[in-house]
Amino acid sequence: MSENLYFEKGLAMGDARSADPAAIEVLKKAKAEGVETAHERYAAQLPQCGFGELGVCCRQCLQGPCRINPFGEPKLGVCGADADLIVARNLLRTIVGGAASHEDHAYSAIRCLYEAAQGKADYEIKGFDKIQSVAAKLGIETEGKEPKEVAEAIALAAFHDFGKFDDEPMHWLTATAPAERVEVWQSLGVIPRNPDREIRTAMHESAMGVDGDPVNLLLACLKLGLVDGYGGLQMGTDIQDILFGTPSPVKSAANLGVLSKDNVNIIVHGHMPEVSEKVVEWARKLEEEAVKAGAKGITLAGVCCSGNEVLMRQGVPSAGNFLSQELAIITGAVEVMVVDVQCFMPSLPKIAACYHTKVVTTTPIGKLPGAEHVELVPGDADAKAQSIVRLAIDNFKNRNAAKVEIPDICSEAWGGFSVEAIVGALATVDPENPLKPLVDNIVAGNVYGAVGVVGCNNTKVRQDHQTVELIKKLLQNNVLVVATGCTAQALAKYGFMTPDGAKQYAGEKLLAVLTAVGEAAGLGGPLPPVLHMGSCVDNSRIGDLLGALAGYLNVSIKDLPVAASAPELQHEKAVSIGTWAVALGVLTHVGVVPPVLGSPLVTKVLTEDVEGLVGGKFFVELDPGKAADTILAHIAAKRKALGI
Amino acid sequence: MSENLYFEKGLAMGDARSADPAAIEVLKKAKAEGVETAHERYAAQLPQCGFGELGVCCRQCLQGPCRINPFGEPKLGVCGADADLIVARNLLRTIVGGAASHEDHAYSAIRCLYEAAQGKADYEIKGFDKIQSVAAKLGIETEGKEPKEVAEAIALAAFHDFGKFDDEPMHWLTATAPAERVEVWQSLGVIPRNPDREIRTAMHESAMGVDGDPVNLLLACLKLGLVDGYGGLQMGTDIQDILFGTPSPVKSAANLGVLSKDNVNIIVHGHMPEVSEKVVEWARKLEEEAVKAGAKGITLAGVCCSGNEVLMRQGVPSAGNFLSQELAIITGAVEVMVVDVQCFMPSLPKIAACYHTKVVTTTPIGKLPGAEHVELVPGDADAKAQSIVRLAIDNFKNRNAAKVEIPDICSEAWGGFSVEAIVGALATVDPENPLKPLVDNIVAGNVYGAVGVVGCNNTKVRQDHQTVELIKKLLQNNVLVVATGCTAQALAKYGFMTPDGAKQYAGEKLLAVLTAVGEAAGLGGPLPPVLHMGSCVDNSRIGDLLGALAGYLNVSIKDLPVAASAPELQHEKAVSIGTWAVALGVLTHVGVVPPVLGSPLVTKVLTEDVEGLVGGKFFVELDPGKAADTILAHIAAKRKALGI
Repeated sequence: MSENLYFEKGLAMGDARSADPAAIEVLKKAKAEGVETAHERYAAQLPQCGFGELGVCCRQCLQGPCRINPFGEPKLGVCGADADLIVARNLLRTIVGGAASHEDHAYSAIRCLYEAAQGKADYEIKGFDKIQSVAAKLGIETEGKEPKEVAEAIALAAFHDFGKFDDEPMHWLTATAPAERVEVWQSLGVIPRNPDREIRTAMHESAMGVDGDPVNLLLACLKLGLVDGYGGLQMGTDIQDILFGTPSPVKSAANLGVLSKDNVNIIVHGHMPEVSEKVVEWARKLEEEAVKAGAKGITLAGVCCSGNEVLMRQGVPSAGNFLSQELAIITGAVEVMVVDVQCFMPSLPKIAACYHTKVVTTTPIGKLPGAEHVELVPGDADAKAQSIVRLAIDNFKNRNAAKVEIPDICSEAWGGFSVEAIVGALATVDPENPLKPLVDNIVAGNVYGAVGVVGCNNTKVRQDHQTVELIKKLLQNNVLVVATGCTAQALAKYGFMTPDGAKQYAGEKLLAVLTAVGEAAGLGGPLPPVLHMGSCVDNSRIGDLLGALAGYLNVSIKDLPVAASAPELQHEKAVSIGTWAVALGVLTHVGVVPPVLGSPLVTKVLTEDVEGLVGGKFFVELDPGKAADTILAHIAAKRKALGI
Repeated sequence: MSENLYFEKGLAMGDARSADPAAIEVLKKAKAEGVETAHERYAAQLPQCGFGELGVCCRQCLQGPCRINPFGEPKLGVCGADADLIVARNLLRTIVGGAASHEDHAYSAIRCLYEAAQGKADYEIKGFDKIQSVAAKLGIETEGKEPKEVAEAIALAAFHDFGKFDDEPMHWLTATAPAERVEVWQSLGVIPRNPDREIRTAMHESAMGVDGDPVNLLLACLKLGLVDGYGGLQMGTDIQDILFGTPSPVKSAANLGVLSKDNVNIIVHGHMPEVSEKVVEWARKLEEEAVKAGAKGITLAGVCCSGNEVLMRQGVPSAGNFLSQELAIITGAVEVMVVDVQCFMPSLPKIAACYHTKVVTTTPIGKLPGAEHVELVPGDADAKAQSIVRLAIDNFKNRNAAKVEIPDICSEAWGGFSVEAIVGALATVDPENPLKPLVDNIVAGNVYGAVGVVGCNNTKVRQDHQTVELIKKLLQNNVLVVATGCTAQALAKYGFMTPDGAKQYAGEKLLAVLTAVGEAAGLGGPLPPVLHMGSCVDNSRIGDLLGALAGYLNVSIKDLPVAASAPELQHEKAVSIGTWAVALGVLTHVGVVPPVLGSPLVTKVLTEDVEGLVGGKFFVELDPGKAADTILAHIAAKRKALGI
């Protein structure tokens, strides 16, 4: 079956939980074996609390919990907080949760780089080009210095932003964000000074009896969105590229069919390439041992953003996105699932216990009762990664062949489209002025606009369905799509990340452009119509691309014919990323209703008024076709305003 | 009427909302005038959500809200989190909220000191002795240095803890906590490295799909308790003493009767002495202008911890505690209520609008729609404080005499019992060895033990009632009591902070000790039986006292015949302070049920198992008499173990 028919097949299977035929197959297996997944747990939670869904439940102090009745009394919490205040405070804490997650992730990468630069870590620094470009942005002298010295200076510059106590904007932000945006944010007073300080202050601001002004709290939300954008995403991606190299186009595959019934299967899951890169490295080095243990070799696969990281840089196939993590184990074929931080379900050990799978946790803040804990620290990463791989090899003998059932479903999928890689491909068309061919095509209307599609899965919506339907319509209308996170993995499953996908999905004009660039770049066919730009942290790559385009055109990002979408968002991180996108000036679609509707004021600010401040705003639309229409109308308006 | 009969009078009035006759009087006025207070809002919230009360409601991701049914299904959230995990994650975020609030408060004080030391702020550094003692603890050289230089070095040492990126314990903690405790915490891996970093990491750890281990999360709770204790309380108090001077015994008064019908009344409310000290300073300097405006003068009064700060250092009377803040305005006699951060109700402007009162906000993170915003920054504090005072004077003409009704109820109240002041008083008995008289009396059983009573008011319990009943019983049993925060203000209202209070409330043996010390110290009577040690941030004073006693006896704090109690806790800060107290090794009573009962595991760890780790634990008891019994039994056991 043609890969890009998997989606239609999944839809035809009529399962409301997923549009992925591989997922549906394994969900049937789960049912037959009496294993409960997130979908069943979601069903058991219904109906969910309406107060919580509207955001009007407050648990900030022990006089509560308080709830505002949208249809009557009470209208005030014990302290006097109304729905606007409660919703705004809750939203700020959600965004803090997201920003803190990304920042802490970036911080780990910085520490790893710092130790690697000093020769104290089991990591070789690979991203020499990135050292140069990041040093240049930060104003760090490189002349006559060893790359390791420069790398150390870069790590120290990052630490400086986390440690400084003055009121100047954080340097990483002013060094990497477009100057026009910095000015706008400065005029609003929302520029972070030190990401950790802003997180602490926001937790304070949202405590009982501090900020009582919902609009002031929403400005803090913008600030925390920028904390995520620059103290999380941008720092994280820059540093990871320095450590592990900047991705370049690579062919891989996606969906549960990448698992092998003959091999030791190791899945990396979570977000930190410090962990996943090392596991990949040692799985490849120790393959012989797997053969000795009776397997034909070792198959590596990724789930969630660890999957994206190793797909982008190592071509490791993706086993699936957020809602496929349990299903991977239920295939019965996984020896070890290694997790680090974020998005791994607490259910995993329980599900693993139904099979022979071992779940391995690797960080001090991400433990799971029932899992094995192998703490992987930079100074001892090789030994720890080896022991994890050997645990998997050793566990192969425990596999119960009768329980193994791997869907024969996967799609070819290309990844590795860093900004550098995209510019590199465009440079084959115009080496002098690489952005020119893209911009010319945008001006000519061959590329009608561009959309970044990001985010998660969410049991509230059919897995992958909204994402795919939205993107199909955008591509048909010649909109170029870039993707990250679980959304990228969704699109990878259905052939959107293949040259063939361009022929299948792209409108005629877009196809011509993709074909011209792809052929010039020596790909022997069109570029995929959806470019995989990486993990959720890699959303900064999209920001960089937007900044470069705006810079080339000498306009603000807010004037570009672009939009963002998180059709199936789930995590706090998606909310903070979205807030950063809005602050960048981007119209940002969300396909799941965030808990803000209980406040007319907050809803109006987020979906209307904020546009007047930063140029971007949120819109909520659960119907992917209508969401596409709104995005297309927005692109049309932006094109018109640009006079193109 | 004797002040210490106010409590009996209040009780006799039979109002379930308060035991304070002044409060009850004003609540009647409020009803007559159709003004709603926190009590009515609380009543309107009943019944509160049982899921929230049990802590089993999770809003960490957009798949939720999820709820665990304690009596049936579902037992798992969408991600697979069970009640234990949900409760532990929620608790960690609560403690983060408290720790972040205190840390951010301390940070403001540090910045103020830093600028003052450089001559860039409108503050004269007053605490020369404290500069010496803090510098000595931190190992900062003072020889041949100007106090300002040393103060700057101290501020920089504090900033260093917020900025460092190594894994060493934060210096302020190791420099100020007992070495034995540091060892215990280190062995558990719960020592904070950098308070901001721990807050960020804890927000990450408690996000969806990170920590799935409730016990690991509870260890993080302990760590964040220490963040509060040393990055919040200890730093905050030390720095504030350096800026504003270490408190010494001072006679003042407490309750709404401190307001004056003839004077311009200005209330300081919140937590930051940078604000309240300046307002007090300028109110005193500008009193003439008030006279010109037709008033007899200016009356200053405080609410919540700003009230405690200026009572401790300036003898400014207290108008009341948390649940009296609205009532102060409802007297109709308040020209201005100045707030800064924490514990001021969002209801204030609405209530103020029923009278002539102006609410003034002073910090960028604590705004209120309907209030005037006068941002008070260290470099411009004098001008801003003047304008606030003049706003009050100018507002005097708008007072409606017909609406003024100030209860003629207030008590004498002594404050200012810093550790230095207590040791100073004891030194009048034994100058060589000031702690000896206290310890000898503890050993002899004249002082049976000591209890620190701290925390808030909470509409769930009758204002002041639990606190007073608990303390009465402890004093009768010769337990020395120290108090902070709104609890101190509660006890101040009923004469517990007067020499007469010793005669009224203290057991015979305790009275003899209080009398001996009070007379030796030249107070002309006994020490008050409850020593007012300051604001919530000043809880570090209690920690210092415990450390000194343990050091003198060469035992661990956990071995001392002491306990802590927060009979009416409300704020997240109270939970984080309590966690620090438990980490110190102290049995800690709470009189309001925290939202943890939905998890048998978390409940058991907090109330039982944690004792094996750190020596302290929580206990929940809503009946103050029974709480006293448990504390007395605990003291008896500790005395027995010490062989005394």
